Amino acid sequence: MNSFGNLLRLTTFGESHGKAMGGVLDGMPPGIFIDPAIIRHHLSRRRPGSDPTSSQRRETDEFEILSGLDSEGYTLGTPIGFVVPNKDARPSDYAEYDGKFRLNHADYTYYKKYGRHEFAGGGRSSARETVSWVLAGSIVRQWLWKSRIAFDAHYIQTLDAAKAKAEGDSVGGIVTGKITGLPAGLGEPVFDKFHSRLAAAMMSINAVKAFEYGDGTRSARMKGSACADRFREPYDPLTPFASNHCGGVMGGITNGMEVNFNVYFKPTPTIMQPMETLDTEWHHAVIPPKGRHDACVAMRAVPVVEAMAALVTGDFVRLNQAYTPLDRYPEGYDPTKM
Amino acid sequence: MNSFGNLLRLTTFGESHGKAMGGVLDGMPPGIFIDPAIIRHHLSRRRPGSDPTSSQRRETDEFEILSGLDSEGYTLGTPIGFVVPNKDARPSDYAEYDGKFRLNHADYTYYKKYGRHEFAGGGRSSARETVSWVLAGSIVRQWLWKSRIAFDAHYIQTLDAAKAKAEGDSVGGIVTGKITGLPAGLGEPVFDKFHSRLAAAMMSINAVKAFEYGDGTRSARMKGSACADRFREPYDPLTPFASNHCGGVMGGITNGMEVNFNVYFKPTPTIMQPMETLDTEWHHAVIPPKGRHDACVAMRAVPVVEAMAALVTGDFVRLNQAYTPLDRYPEGYDPTKM
Amino acid sequence: MNSFGNLLRLTTFGESHGKAMGGVLDGMPPGIFIDPAIIRHHLSRRRPGSDPTSSQRRETDEFEILSGLDSEGYTLGTPIGFVVPNKDARPSDYAEYDGKFRLNHADYTYYKKYGRHEFAGGGRSSARETVSWVLAGSIVRQWLWKSRIAFDAHYIQTLDAAKAKAEGDSVGGIVTGKITGLPAGLGEPVFDKFHSRLAAAMMSINAVKAFEYGDGTRSARMKGSACADRFREPYDPLTPFASNHCGGVMGGITNGMEVNFNVYFKPTPTIMQPMETLDTEWHHAVIPPKGRHDACVAMRAVPVVEAMAALVTGDFVRLNQAYTPLDRYPEGYDPTKM
Amino acid sequence: MNSFGNLLRLTTFGESHGKAMGGVLDGMPPGIFIDPAIIRHHLSRRRPGSDPTSSQRRETDEFEILSGLDSEGYTLGTPIGFVVPNKDARPSDYAEYDGKFRLNHADYTYYKKYGRHEFAGGGRSSARETVSWVLAGSIVRQWLWKSRIAFDAHYIQTLDAAKAKAEGDSVGGIVTGKITGLPAGLGEPVFDKFHSRLAAAMMSINAVKAFEYGDGTRSARMKGSACADRFREPYDPLTPFASNHCGGVMGGITNGMEVNFNVYFKPTPTIMQPMETLDTEWHHAVIPPKGRHDACVAMRAVPVVEAMAALVTGDFVRLNQAYTPLDRYPEGYDPTKM
Repeated sequence: MNSFGNLLRLTTFGESHGKAMGGVLDGMPPGIFIDPAIIRHHLSRRRPGSDPTSSQRRETDEFEILSGLDSEGYTLGTPIGFVVPNKDARPSDYAEYDGKFRLNHADYTYYKKYGRHEFAGGGRSSARETVSWVLAGSIVRQWLWKSRIAFDAHYIQTLDAAKAKAEGDSVGGIVTGKITGLPAGLGEPVFDKFHSRLAAAMMSINAVKAFEYGDGTRSARMKGSACADRFREPYDPLTPFASNHCGGVMGGITNGMEVNFNVYFKPTPTIMQPMETLDTEWHHAVIPPKGRHDACVAMRAVPVVEAMAALVTGDFVRLNQAYTPLDRYPEGYDPTKM
Repeated sequence: MNSFGNLLRLTTFGESHGKAMGGVLDGMPPGIFIDPAIIRHHLSRRRPGSDPTSSQRRETDEFEILSGLDSEGYTLGTPIGFVVPNKDARPSDYAEYDGKFRLNHADYTYYKKYGRHEFAGGGRSSARETVSWVLAGSIVRQWLWKSRIAFDAHYIQTLDAAKAKAEGDSVGGIVTGKITGLPAGLGEPVFDKFHSRLAAAMMSINAVKAFEYGDGTRSARMKGSACADRFREPYDPLTPFASNHCGGVMGGITNGMEVNFNVYFKPTPTIMQPMETLDTEWHHAVIPPKGRHDACVAMRAVPVVEAMAALVTGDFVRLNQAYTPLDRYPEGYDPTKM
Repeated sequence: MNSFGNLLRLTTFGESHGKAMGGVLDGMPPGIFIDPAIIRHHLSRRRPGSDPTSSQRRETDEFEILSGLDSEGYTLGTPIGFVVPNKDARPSDYAEYDGKFRLNHADYTYYKKYGRHEFAGGGRSSARETVSWVLAGSIVRQWLWKSRIAFDAHYIQTLDAAKAKAEGDSVGGIVTGKITGLPAGLGEPVFDKFHSRLAAAMMSINAVKAFEYGDGTRSARMKGSACADRFREPYDPLTPFASNHCGGVMGGITNGMEVNFNVYFKPTPTIMQPMETLDTEWHHAVIPPKGRHDACVAMRAVPVVEAMAALVTGDFVRLNQAYTPLDRYPEGYDPTKM
Repeated sequence: MNSFGNLLRLTTFGESHGKAMGGVLDGMPPGIFIDPAIIRHHLSRRRPGSDPTSSQRRETDEFEILSGLDSEGYTLGTPIGFVVPNKDARPSDYAEYDGKFRLNHADYTYYKKYGRHEFAGGGRSSARETVSWVLAGSIVRQWLWKSRIAFDAHYIQTLDAAKAKAEGDSVGGIVTGKITGLPAGLGEPVFDKFHSRLAAAMMSINAVKAFEYGDGTRSARMKGSACADRFREPYDPLTPFASNHCGGVMGGITNGMEVNFNVYFKPTPTIMQPMETLDTEWHHAVIPPKGRHDACVAMRAVPVVEAMAALVTGDFVRLNQAYTPLDRYPEGYDPTKM
């Protein structure tokens, strides 16, 4: 259950303090040039350290793409395998945690589910996992950009991370995202609505507690007369509506307007204050304030939000091609030569 | 793409103004007694008409289960096929809509996606579809209730639907839900987190614009020291934590506490006021205030929220059994006899 | 696990002696005219009774399509739900079987798997199930015929069914099939090869014990120099090769030639001779020669083979559209308008 | 579409003459010791060179497991990522092939499907891919061996490979396989029969043209009275039947007997004789007899057959756990603690 997507599918592996993170991106079309410099740029935006409130773990995120590209960097249409070694993993930092459940982490639930748990660094539950998402997302973005589909997210500060970090505390935050350049028609009507998959993608990101799109939670306090999106007249297929209460999706299907959404993050659960908890013998235990963590995970999550939005969109683009009705093929198209 | 779930999977069919709604619920375990009276009860809670602000469409929701149960009403472990005829469909009511895109409905996006659209009643985009979800959900709930897993949702009023209806307007609303009796360990760590799937399920419901669980959107404005869930001491596996900021899910996996969440609904897009729009020739058009609709969809969505939560949970229960590690089998269990 | 296919997916339900068989065909493109007379024709070819060696069960196979078609019979692109009532089911015929495992039937394995079993008529293991496959396959064939893709199978007699029936015995047989009009390019390179899925489809049919395509089992006794398929010169994209040892598939992908294959059926396990077996108490038991069965299942399986080949092909056609590389779009195609 | 399996799923990547082969094995249970020496043993059986008729490509198949195992070699229940570098890839050997379609290879069909093709070494269509299958299969076998489920295949010679190689020719062959120690109950009744998935798995292996199980093709020439499998009396759940015409599967579900099957391979298409073909300009071309290939692929495929059988079986074991009916839980089992 470490795969995401149907026709464009990312499968990942790697524990936070193991040898490497990595994955396989399957379903990319052939003939797309992938620029490693753009991948490096996207990875650098996710990396801790550019801000004094971020984790002191220093990963260079050097990656290797092992397949799926020809010698000139164009996709072959075959699966793209990649690896990102973990170079600054220090499991010994976590020795004092061993066997103690960190609060609001996944330690307790993993232990209950699997009957065992790697307490060092959280294993698969660490946000280190998202390095693979950003890498794969960057590849997808370079494809979609050819059709001018773009992904743009920003961090919205709610509390001051620096002040909180000074007290050994952490803060939550919001990431607001938008997808531009989308054609109308992406998304499936019933269970695989565009915004359903987008919600699932965002809720996969560590520490996310809420998702909204368009008017979002405010909708619940609005009247129908106040949130109708009227058509522009004359009709313009590229920006068909005069307003965007619906957030670019109607009935689960994109309408050609910008898709916009917000993702709400809780504070980093690890704080630099002693934490009283239990150990695996169910005895009282105290976790000392130690380790390397971000005071606000939302900041670093910005490129992760963009990457997951790209994975969702790319999958729907492929799916939509599959369902192109015959009578909408362009003139001269001969399905016997498809 | 009209299926939901993996090991417990609902596949549905039916257009709002066609002959019937229906579906196939696949993956139910054998030997569970299914009481049709309980199904009728759940369906009755979804039916319009118990409130003056609801639609005047009168469907009795008589259903027929065609397979999957033995003569005494116990599941066979085979797929459960069911049909719910549409008896009060009046496509002629919609004659004036034909070829005109209703605002904030799926008319425009369906037309762009499929190159054609049934304007009468919305086809698959109508909330009539949810009758199949509630029916299937009721079956799943009867199974899960044997393990004391229960689903409970309530409507939270934000604006007065009656006052709004008097003005030909509509209102949004909130449905708050909880799942009780869950064992720890449900949910997959990375992409199929319990709350990811729950979010996707809720966002599949018509008119939903936001989803949150636990502290939800408020998390973004909290500090880490304020939202840690401490263990109860001594350890109690059935209610292990003294608070529930996390909403019953840690790292994507249930922790044995109640799962609680909120679902935000926009106002019904159809209102009893003339609506200016375009038609399929891209000419200006006006949709007269007519048809049968609810002033507030959130009210009727309460059993739909419960049903979708049940489908998500049942799927994870089955998945969890699949991944039971060998060393956690109860004593005396012999896998050669499984 | 009662679904077949990915983008074109059939989900079925129904026990042999229950109320009805039925299913949902999801993923059909919109705008295809479906002629019920053609469905009836395909169903009639599967029906027992046209031959004295076939079962005496008399089903008229009257079907009802409940969704997915507009009032003129054209597909909407929405899932097609259908029901075929069981009218000549006589569970009482099977009273003497109750609790006794019929030899080479699924009684024993179902009982071990589910802990219970409907001995009457075999439940889901009966070939009655294939009525839904033929119905769905007929719909798919009407779509694919628009691109001149056709399915044609024939029964090859190995032993005389009439002579065997006279002795209360049964015989095996072979069905040879071919698919014509296929474009080159269908099938996925590694695990979802065209012939892999075709094999799985054919092995799903009751009583099938072997599958081969192209030179098949004979290949194992051939030299490489004897089975190379040379190109026709000059190149003709519609029949590119001068021979067809490979059976129309190279490296898992269709090459534009006819796909041909053979399906081997074992004899009907039920014969009109007393059968010594065990019952669910593990005591010795005798099953008297009674019931309604075919002396040769292969004969009636001909339209089933065609239907399953159609389901496999239709799914790959959709999948192939999804993976159309951008540089192969026809001139003038604008993906922003897809 | 480079994934195989549902709950136990292998996803692979790598081109024959690229940097590395590799993959992700997802769904292994936690707590299983994986011995790298056993993996090396399985890989060595697949490696060319132990026989004078095999390819001269010399790969040491040194592999690295990057995740999913703890420091002592036990599975964590997380996905197992692995890489096998290509060390003896010599794309220059293939310079003379460039742009020329090798006969009965995938060159033509890949070119038609993707609009481009790596002629050097066949890319994803090469049997080099199977190194990942054997590696993953070895991990699965070490798990299943704990329940005494074992996989055993043998090569059956049909023609003498050495004599054929002396003439620059190649030969076909048969691999016969069996699975022992299986519990009754694996396999799904309708579309995911045990033997359907096994057939699909075997047909995924390069050069396979036919699959049969139990009495196989001979069944078509048998009478029902000659192929009934009678119970042993008294009943013995571990070997319940006195004969095994059915090949260990009844109605798609294992019956506890040995599963046996045959896989038929065509001759290696590349032979050391000049081959007349076309190039991508559709001009006549000749491929000179050059390159490194096996005279008989079936020999080396023996561990591949075992590995694919293991992947199929492991997936069904997990699936079967998911569907364990509640009333078959062992005494004392408390689902609230699962």
